[in-house]
Amino acid sequence: MKAKAVFYHAGCGVCVEAEQSLAAALDPARFDVEIVNFASAPERVAEAEAAGVKSVPAFVIDGRPFHINHGATMDQVRGAT
Amino acid sequence: MKAKAVFYHAGCGVCVEAEQSLAAALDPARFDVEIVNFASAPERVAEAEAAGVKSVPAFVIDGRPFHINHGATMDQVRGAT
Repeated sequence: MKAKAVFYHAGCGVCVEAEQSLAAALDPARFDVEIVNFASAPERVAEAEAAGVKSVPAFVIDGRPFHINHGATMDQVRGAT
Repeated sequence: MKAKAVFYHAGCGVCVEAEQSLAAALDPARFDVEIVNFASAPERVAEAEAAGVKSVPAFVIDGRPFHINHGATMDQVRGAT
């Protein structure tokens, strides 16, 4: 069974770079990667915060948050949505 | 030809978690992943900083730095080596 990896972002430049270089790099044989853009899915903010996401872009892999560089805080994300 | 991905860390708890979850997740068909621990390879600090690494753990993929969570600054790394 594949592990779940969710990449959360907000469409920012830092986010796009991380998506293209890192989110796209995961092994498709072992991971189901879902890309969530808060600009089009603001209802997913609560789920990301519950997993420990403090800023975007971020991965949640097997329930653990990994913040990648820094595009925006979740407060900024909420203000923008 | 595979892309080069270097994962720099300093042996910290945050580093180990990122190594196990994220560095190990890259597609081996597309990436040659090298793990560099500054504790045993302090001579690699300059190369990481030249690529833009400001803290560890961090990936450099195709020459672009991606900082993952925050274990230690490079100043702290230099102080520890």
